[in-house]
Amino acid sequence: MPPSPIPVAVLGATGSVGQRFISLLDNHPWFKVVAIAASDRSAGQKYSQATRWVLDTPMPEYAKDMIIVPANTESVQAKIVFSALHTEIANELEPQFAKAGSAVCSNASSYRRGEDVPLLLPEINADHIHLVKQQRVNKNWSGCIVTNPNCTSTGLTVVLKALDDAFGVKKVFAVSLQALSGAGYPGVPSLDIMDNVIPNVGNGGEEEKVEWEPRKMLGKLNNGKIEMADIRFSVHTNRVAVIDGHTVCVSVQLDNRTSPEEAARVLREYAGPSLAQNLPSSPRPVISVREEADRPQPRLDRLTGNGMTTVVGRLRRDPILDLKFVVLSHNTIRGAAGASIYNAELLAHEGLL
Amino acid sequence: MPPSPIPVAVLGATGSVGQRFISLLDNHPWFKVVAIAASDRSAGQKYSQATRWVLDTPMPEYAKDMIIVPANTESVQAKIVFSALHTEIANELEPQFAKAGSAVCSNASSYRRGEDVPLLLPEINADHIHLVKQQRVNKNWSGCIVTNPNCTSTGLTVVLKALDDAFGVKKVFAVSLQALSGAGYPGVPSLDIMDNVIPNVGNGGEEEKVEWEPRKMLGKLNNGKIEMADIRFSVHTNRVAVIDGHTVCVSVQLDNRTSPEEAARVLREYAGPSLAQNLPSSPRPVISVREEADRPQPRLDRLTGNGMTTVVGRLRRDPILDLKFVVLSHNTIRGAAGASIYNAELLAHEGLL
Amino acid sequence: MPPSPIPVAVLGATGSVGQRFISLLDNHPWFKVVAIAASDRSAGQKYSQATRWVLDTPMPEYAKDMIIVPANTESVQAKIVFSALHTEIANELEPQFAKAGSAVCSNASSYRRGEDVPLLLPEINADHIHLVKQQRVNKNWSGCIVTNPNCTSTGLTVVLKALDDAFGVKKVFAVSLQALSGAGYPGVPSLDIMDNVIPNVGNGGEEEKVEWEPRKMLGKLNNGKIEMADIRFSVHTNRVAVIDGHTVCVSVQLDNRTSPEEAARVLREYAGPSLAQNLPSSPRPVISVREEADRPQPRLDRLTGNGMTTVVGRLRRDPILDLKFVVLSHNTIRGAAGASIYNAELLAHEGLL
Amino acid sequence: MPPSPIPVAVLGATGSVGQRFISLLDNHPWFKVVAIAASDRSAGQKYSQATRWVLDTPMPEYAKDMIIVPANTESVQAKIVFSALHTEIANELEPQFAKAGSAVCSNASSYRRGEDVPLLLPEINADHIHLVKQQRVNKNWSGCIVTNPNCTSTGLTVVLKALDDAFGVKKVFAVSLQALSGAGYPGVPSLDIMDNVIPNVGNGGEEEKVEWEPRKMLGKLNNGKIEMADIRFSVHTNRVAVIDGHTVCVSVQLDNRTSPEEAARVLREYAGPSLAQNLPSSPRPVISVREEADRPQPRLDRLTGNGMTTVVGRLRRDPILDLKFVVLSHNTIRGAAGASIYNAELLAHEGLL
Repeated sequence: MPPSPIPVAVLGATGSVGQRFISLLDNHPWFKVVAIAASDRSAGQKYSQATRWVLDTPMPEYAKDMIIVPANTESVQAKIVFSALHTEIANELEPQFAKAGSAVCSNASSYRRGEDVPLLLPEINADHIHLVKQQRVNKNWSGCIVTNPNCTSTGLTVVLKALDDAFGVKKVFAVSLQALSGAGYPGVPSLDIMDNVIPNVGNGGEEEKVEWEPRKMLGKLNNGKIEMADIRFSVHTNRVAVIDGHTVCVSVQLDNRTSPEEAARVLREYAGPSLAQNLPSSPRPVISVREEADRPQPRLDRLTGNGMTTVVGRLRRDPILDLKFVVLSHNTIRGAAGASIYNAELLAHEGLL
Repeated sequence: MPPSPIPVAVLGATGSVGQRFISLLDNHPWFKVVAIAASDRSAGQKYSQATRWVLDTPMPEYAKDMIIVPANTESVQAKIVFSALHTEIANELEPQFAKAGSAVCSNASSYRRGEDVPLLLPEINADHIHLVKQQRVNKNWSGCIVTNPNCTSTGLTVVLKALDDAFGVKKVFAVSLQALSGAGYPGVPSLDIMDNVIPNVGNGGEEEKVEWEPRKMLGKLNNGKIEMADIRFSVHTNRVAVIDGHTVCVSVQLDNRTSPEEAARVLREYAGPSLAQNLPSSPRPVISVREEADRPQPRLDRLTGNGMTTVVGRLRRDPILDLKFVVLSHNTIRGAAGASIYNAELLAHEGLL
Repeated sequence: MPPSPIPVAVLGATGSVGQRFISLLDNHPWFKVVAIAASDRSAGQKYSQATRWVLDTPMPEYAKDMIIVPANTESVQAKIVFSALHTEIANELEPQFAKAGSAVCSNASSYRRGEDVPLLLPEINADHIHLVKQQRVNKNWSGCIVTNPNCTSTGLTVVLKALDDAFGVKKVFAVSLQALSGAGYPGVPSLDIMDNVIPNVGNGGEEEKVEWEPRKMLGKLNNGKIEMADIRFSVHTNRVAVIDGHTVCVSVQLDNRTSPEEAARVLREYAGPSLAQNLPSSPRPVISVREEADRPQPRLDRLTGNGMTTVVGRLRRDPILDLKFVVLSHNTIRGAAGASIYNAELLAHEGLL
Repeated sequence: MPPSPIPVAVLGATGSVGQRFISLLDNHPWFKVVAIAASDRSAGQKYSQATRWVLDTPMPEYAKDMIIVPANTESVQAKIVFSALHTEIANELEPQFAKAGSAVCSNASSYRRGEDVPLLLPEINADHIHLVKQQRVNKNWSGCIVTNPNCTSTGLTVVLKALDDAFGVKKVFAVSLQALSGAGYPGVPSLDIMDNVIPNVGNGGEEEKVEWEPRKMLGKLNNGKIEMADIRFSVHTNRVAVIDGHTVCVSVQLDNRTSPEEAARVLREYAGPSLAQNLPSSPRPVISVREEADRPQPRLDRLTGNGMTTVVGRLRRDPILDLKFVVLSHNTIRGAAGASIYNAELLAHEGLL
């Protein structure tokens, strides 16, 4: 759609989420990577020298010989800046880039709770993008910061949105079985996870995020403010020996009871806001509903819709609440790098760059 | 305690649970294995020849040269018969052994729901053992059948008992992350579980068991009848890449709210019925409460109390119900072979052989 | 190149190698799948119903609704028949198809040792394809049987060919670390391989194959006969916890000593016979040489050249023989289904259908 | 044997090898742990607080409340000091302890190549212990340094010794499949080894060690000097997804050819020097020979003889050299902590403390 390629940069490009950005931006129809930034330690080296590549698809050719620059606003000038920075660094750098005029599409958690910062999954709350107008006024920035949620919130919230629209959601129990790539690289030591489960991700912080973030995304934007959705969450997180793909077991209470069959129909037909449907990264379909008794499974289903589709299975009645099901979402594509890119596409499409 | 060794037999001795029986009965202070039985295919061979040993401790010397006999009442005569048979075969054979005078201590699910069949975890419902008197009258057997629950029900129910005694339990959400050994051998193909999760164990049957069995065990024995406990369960099961040790994430609603600290104290002090406390297989302690943010973990904690102790961690408030925690139990020791042996010890101790 | 799509069939299509055939034939530029055959048990069902799909890429749309037919010459009529049959069944069925006029491109081991049966890796011995003329005369068949080697022989032999052409190969030590998918589905039980190595694949049979097959492929075709290469092999095989991709550690003695650098250059420049270079499945490059100290690695490198390229690394002097290195090859693509398809392309290209 | 417990200390006690020391010294019949030392960061804390325990057996009670002291000669005074230090730190500290009068039994590689430092596996070269007399003269120490080899050299060298005594060993090809615990903790990132093999351990350094160390241990002690054995080695190392237990695939050339059966008999009967046979940690048997086609396997066989026995299997003719077989050894017991303890027992037994 845009007449000429939009110049973009990746901050934190050598880490595991950074690598996903580099990989997903290969041959992107709208964006062209003009700068790859990382820590000072890596700056000055070729990307292929400085990076311990951990993806099972090869490093794209375009990136191999690009020279890494330091992650600051002098070295990096781009319309869109993708941030795979660690929280503390993102805290400091992202506002600098926004001030300097870049649209920062961030995977970091630093500003997700900002009142004027969109926390965005375009297929469910594309309209929240307009918070950036408020943000620009508040901060006097020519750029902006737009965030995507935690990888575990992602698939869960997509499904909840479809159910909430149709039946109203009141309470949510969720237990996650999360992939190793969610912890970055080097991340989880092999001795900690071989023949094992770690019954807590991020020392409790992850659970708190997943109990809060969906309420913002399912909230309503009114007069430049998000009204948090009135839903109660109980979340337990686990790390398991899976490379990519977060599985979440969910039970929900609805305002209006429904049958698993009807819920399946609603999920299958869920299309999301029209302005988010035809972007390059739009999930096709938004939600895939599996009928088999033992799906979704991370290894078999995480690449559905190029890793952007949310996969649901085992829809059945819950003996205590109303509905019960399993959600799978690719944590480093839909849940991280792909999410930020999809957000950037929405910004471009809405003329908000 | 008994004056001389009690002769015991193991049915289905070549399978993975059967191997645990053989292993745990090595040097048992009360019991002596006098017969090892398996399918007709294996009968006549030495145990060491017929068995593809899958435990990481070596096959006990006593068993290596024992000749496998067919699993029938002519070939197997023993005061106690441990059954690691598949359900369909157990259905047929266990009553024959009970009729012939053996106390059948069974890990099979066949008779768990029988009205006069104890479903037993001695540390919580040792008194249910007296159902066998009723059973002998009803069936006119000199022997009896005593069962232990499904491996996933086991640890969960032990913790629920301690909480129920102290605070009353009303509702239970449970999501399991179950070990591979629970599926027997050959069991789960490696291609199904490497880099993967299977979000359903036993095609739904496991969930049904875990929603039903605890209610029987937490029920009251009145006039030779079990009154099922009035607790509602919602269970979701998963298979994960762990060799031994089932993890269960649990949220509970109580009659009387309490703090996580108080609940921890109650669990720590839980000792169970006195008649079950000093048997050779009695768990010491019954429940181990971990304070760390990331425990229990199957690889590190499954052998607590020689695999008989139930381990609990991450006790905290639940944002929807009252309490939330993680339970770990060794599925082939406390949850299978060790369970049947503990039951047999109780029978012997109570003079019910 | 062929004017219109060539009709092909897959025998044994529901197994793990069969699934790779179905997957790799999706959108093939020359071939069109007209029949999917499997055991009588599956016949009559839709492919998507009868198949427990184990690949991490989704089942191709074209195959989902195709009705499985029995694997016999009445039900299956196709110019090319890909065989993913088990050895015993292949023994019987493949000659029937060859007699009925189909070119059988087989992954089974049944006829690999046949004197007039090409054992083919087109990038090294494409000329051996002409053995089929002799075969047709001998057997009076209008079709033919063409085989590809065992998955562990595959990458090893490609590298040996390049070295043999340049320096002459005399002795080869090879130790494999083989992937689980090589054992098919259900294949290796998870309890056998989690936290484990099995130091023998196929009970010795695999080692024998890898000590024999390369000698045929590296042999010369003279007057319709293969003269086996005069090279001695010592092979040890292991199964490891890897999904796809066989690693082989190799030491070789050469006729003419060389340096690792020179050997690397030779491998990098190896292009193979010209008639095999521009087929749809031709590996590009034939051999990829890695410079890093810790490559190739199965998870990271198995998809090099769409899984058709042989990857080599750690080229160094051997303290006893001459050269030492590590070879990686995708066992179900280059080493199985992709191999048979590449062979079929060569047959088509040479006008031998 | 010694009249009263000998006071011992562990340096580097919080790491994974340090943990094995703490575990194996629990209830040791001769030794009593009087000091636990670690980095300054940990000093002052209870052992149970400072340690991320990674073993699957529980932390021994005796150690839990011991206060960690700094690793220096003022804080640590003990007859025997076990060193699980990193190489650079061991370089500096071990001589200080030897000077101060402690017998340093070290698992570090720092002084293995020292001319007057025993590199010891008591069951094969117990007589080398007498090098410490020379060492004390040379260095003017009242203590001493005694080392054990790299974990991959260990099992291999035990088997080679038995073969060398009987038949003479000339050349050795060895390819290892090494466990994760050999890399310490945190060690290998899970993303590097899940569904993967790393075809190089320690960046080549490991291979060099395994090509050198066995030659010293198989050498003869003459006049206070070790004459290196004249054997040529070619070693390739791999890291695989196994927790404990190194597997090594070996081919050997002998001075006097023999049959696999005769070699098996020799290995089975190998007892080692008499002065090493009746120590608390003496392996019983020294070598276990398995007849099965698929053994030894790390998960099933690593605990043979409490992890001190070397397990051999698949003895067969080598098509190029003479014999071929697989060796398994527990890398953190026989190959690390257990090795140093066994060495200390020999020192005590020989009156060399």
